[in-house]
Amino acid sequence: MPPFDVPEGDPFGPHNLPYGVFSRAGASERSVGVRLGDHVLDAGATARALGSPYAGLLAQPTLNPLLAAGRTAWSDVRRALTAWVTVPAHRETIAPLLHPLSEVTLHLPFEVADYVDFYASENHARNVGQIFRPDATDSLTPNWKHLPIGYHGRSGTVVVSGTEVVRPSGQRKAPSDTAPVFGPSVRLDIEAEVGFVVGAPSTRGTPVPLSSFRDHVFGLCLLNDWSARDIQAWEYVPLGPFLGKSFATSVSAWITPLDALDDARVAPPARTHPLLPYLDDSEDEPGGYDLRISVAVNGHVVSEPPFSTMYWTAAQQLAHMTVNGASLRTGDLYGSGTVSGPSEHERGSLLELTWNGRDTLDLPDGKRAFLEDGDEVTLTAWAPGPGGTRVGLGEVRGRITPAPNPS
Amino acid sequence: MPPFDVPEGDPFGPHNLPYGVFSRAGASERSVGVRLGDHVLDAGATARALGSPYAGLLAQPTLNPLLAAGRTAWSDVRRALTAWVTVPAHRETIAPLLHPLSEVTLHLPFEVADYVDFYASENHARNVGQIFRPDATDSLTPNWKHLPIGYHGRSGTVVVSGTEVVRPSGQRKAPSDTAPVFGPSVRLDIEAEVGFVVGAPSTRGTPVPLSSFRDHVFGLCLLNDWSARDIQAWEYVPLGPFLGKSFATSVSAWITPLDALDDARVAPPARTHPLLPYLDDSEDEPGGYDLRISVAVNGHVVSEPPFSTMYWTAAQQLAHMTVNGASLRTGDLYGSGTVSGPSEHERGSLLELTWNGRDTLDLPDGKRAFLEDGDEVTLTAWAPGPGGTRVGLGEVRGRITPAPNPS
Repeated sequence: MPPFDVPEGDPFGPHNLPYGVFSRAGASERSVGVRLGDHVLDAGATARALGSPYAGLLAQPTLNPLLAAGRTAWSDVRRALTAWVTVPAHRETIAPLLHPLSEVTLHLPFEVADYVDFYASENHARNVGQIFRPDATDSLTPNWKHLPIGYHGRSGTVVVSGTEVVRPSGQRKAPSDTAPVFGPSVRLDIEAEVGFVVGAPSTRGTPVPLSSFRDHVFGLCLLNDWSARDIQAWEYVPLGPFLGKSFATSVSAWITPLDALDDARVAPPARTHPLLPYLDDSEDEPGGYDLRISVAVNGHVVSEPPFSTMYWTAAQQLAHMTVNGASLRTGDLYGSGTVSGPSEHERGSLLELTWNGRDTLDLPDGKRAFLEDGDEVTLTAWAPGPGGTRVGLGEVRGRITPAPNPS
Repeated sequence: MPPFDVPEGDPFGPHNLPYGVFSRAGASERSVGVRLGDHVLDAGATARALGSPYAGLLAQPTLNPLLAAGRTAWSDVRRALTAWVTVPAHRETIAPLLHPLSEVTLHLPFEVADYVDFYASENHARNVGQIFRPDATDSLTPNWKHLPIGYHGRSGTVVVSGTEVVRPSGQRKAPSDTAPVFGPSVRLDIEAEVGFVVGAPSTRGTPVPLSSFRDHVFGLCLLNDWSARDIQAWEYVPLGPFLGKSFATSVSAWITPLDALDDARVAPPARTHPLLPYLDDSEDEPGGYDLRISVAVNGHVVSEPPFSTMYWTAAQQLAHMTVNGASLRTGDLYGSGTVSGPSEHERGSLLELTWNGRDTLDLPDGKRAFLEDGDEVTLTAWAPGPGGTRVGLGEVRGRITPAPNPS
């Protein structure tokens, strides 16, 4: 039996230790917590109880102080946490500080600074290109293989898993219509993504090279970039997605530190085009991550997108995002873009799964082209861990509530 | 002589009272200040000295607490400030709290939450359309007259007037090239804009109607949306501008409250297309502002864009931005988009002034197609105030420094 009663093989064993922020039932105080099996360890209270020097980073209502502390501190704190949950001598101290997940509320774990979303899956980009530009000679735009395309999203509407998502209203116009109409979106969709969380800031005017990725990025989460395809289609030329995306972006409550994912590192797909030096990772350590995502609608798995197929890595995205001198702040979040594998069952959006509504998903509770009110979407994922273990990435969950009546 | 030695007709007289954040030479402490002529009044210290209930909003290192306090508080504080700088009995109290502008440092006056940039000038959009799509039958995209097009920008690189702007590097590709090249931008440009500052937040899921504009928006500033046209041209299809804009956005140090601009309100241009109800302002009070902007390069005025020509108003932009349920936060900033009038001397970007480099500006210090290292760009503006006065909007200034050598 492993220490502290976490079952053998649990994806949230002491090899994982993702970070979140929780409060206990009936209490308003928030604290940094670490997940252990189906419990959360009050990391701040533990640090205090053990007289740890890290109490200042952990006895906090958000992860931001820990994020800002930088890579050496991240390693030191993780080492300390590992000792706290594995060394039997600490058992008596931490037992009362372990709370069942069912008795806590999980909060948005960090204050989001800037939110950027990329478009890094070649399968996804080709599917979207074929759906929207069926007559184009190449389903990718000319820049796609030369740079990781991205854009800024709305950080103020990033919400934690479990938050309900109100169906957005907006303008849409079918090609056959002469003028747009207004109403609730009728093509509400998901995008299964992985989000990367920036810890250490950078200086304006100074790019962050590929080799500094781990100095700046603390960890990752699951991310659902809810998308209203009808609103997006009418608005996005020429300045990109805006209201089709800005109503909500959901993230998992647990941030998995990159230090827990070293066994999941894999080489990205072979590059088909030469890369400019600031993006050339051919001599670097593997920049991909083997994360196995699962997408469920009302509990029925509809897709299993493999993150290992992403063409652009998180390190390349960070290098690109800063190559013009743009600075990073603690709490910056960037999404990978929709994760879609090569096969039909690996597509990370309903747009692709139903080919823009041409087909339907046959769920036990009915057919779906896009999301209906009351539908609940859950993304889960795991990654290979040390010694054949699995590292659980938690989940991001959201249920659609009806659009409000216009006042 | 008006009170407190501000010359008659000064655009920063007691009818204006814009807000900023300053520190005194040699001191690190920041305080909310109000500009009066060529002085800044320490508003926090004044409130304390006079035992004002507003000390809690004004004795602060940013404007955020005042912004968050809401419209009634904004009016009350402005009324109090007006009394402090006009009632002779206060003269002795405030005299030592008035500091010459030359002896203070002005800081970014608020913490920027989300930054959105619009595209609301029909003249600008038509010029850009003609430059980039000369063969199109309509220089506007089909959506332009139906909704205020906008996109999210990078709030972490919003900087205060006077901050140097490092020339960005990035990818660019001429149509005749087979692959992109990397290097410092060779088409570095400005965009003369007005920025609107959100004070009171809103609730996710609940749109903010046109009629609630003044309940949420506190005031406005000048804004220069620095743009690298070569980087932007290669990256922006299909998800919009990213690194071509994200290296820096400069704002003026002074935020002019909307309460100071009631005499500048004007009707926007006649609408050529019917608007959906949530954007229809035909029965509302005038939503435009008569702001006279001036653009100078190295002290030479190159353009005088009239803000009164903007097709979409700030109230329409706010209603649109939230109609999908996206919420507002205190400190949200949104730019109007480049302000360009109908005549050549009224264009708010070098792109338009030199027709993408086809022509040049003949300055006393040489010809310019785009900005060179060392160039300093200054935007200034004024608006009609009560009784024939002018309301000064301050300035936003930035100098280009060379791109760093690649390491």
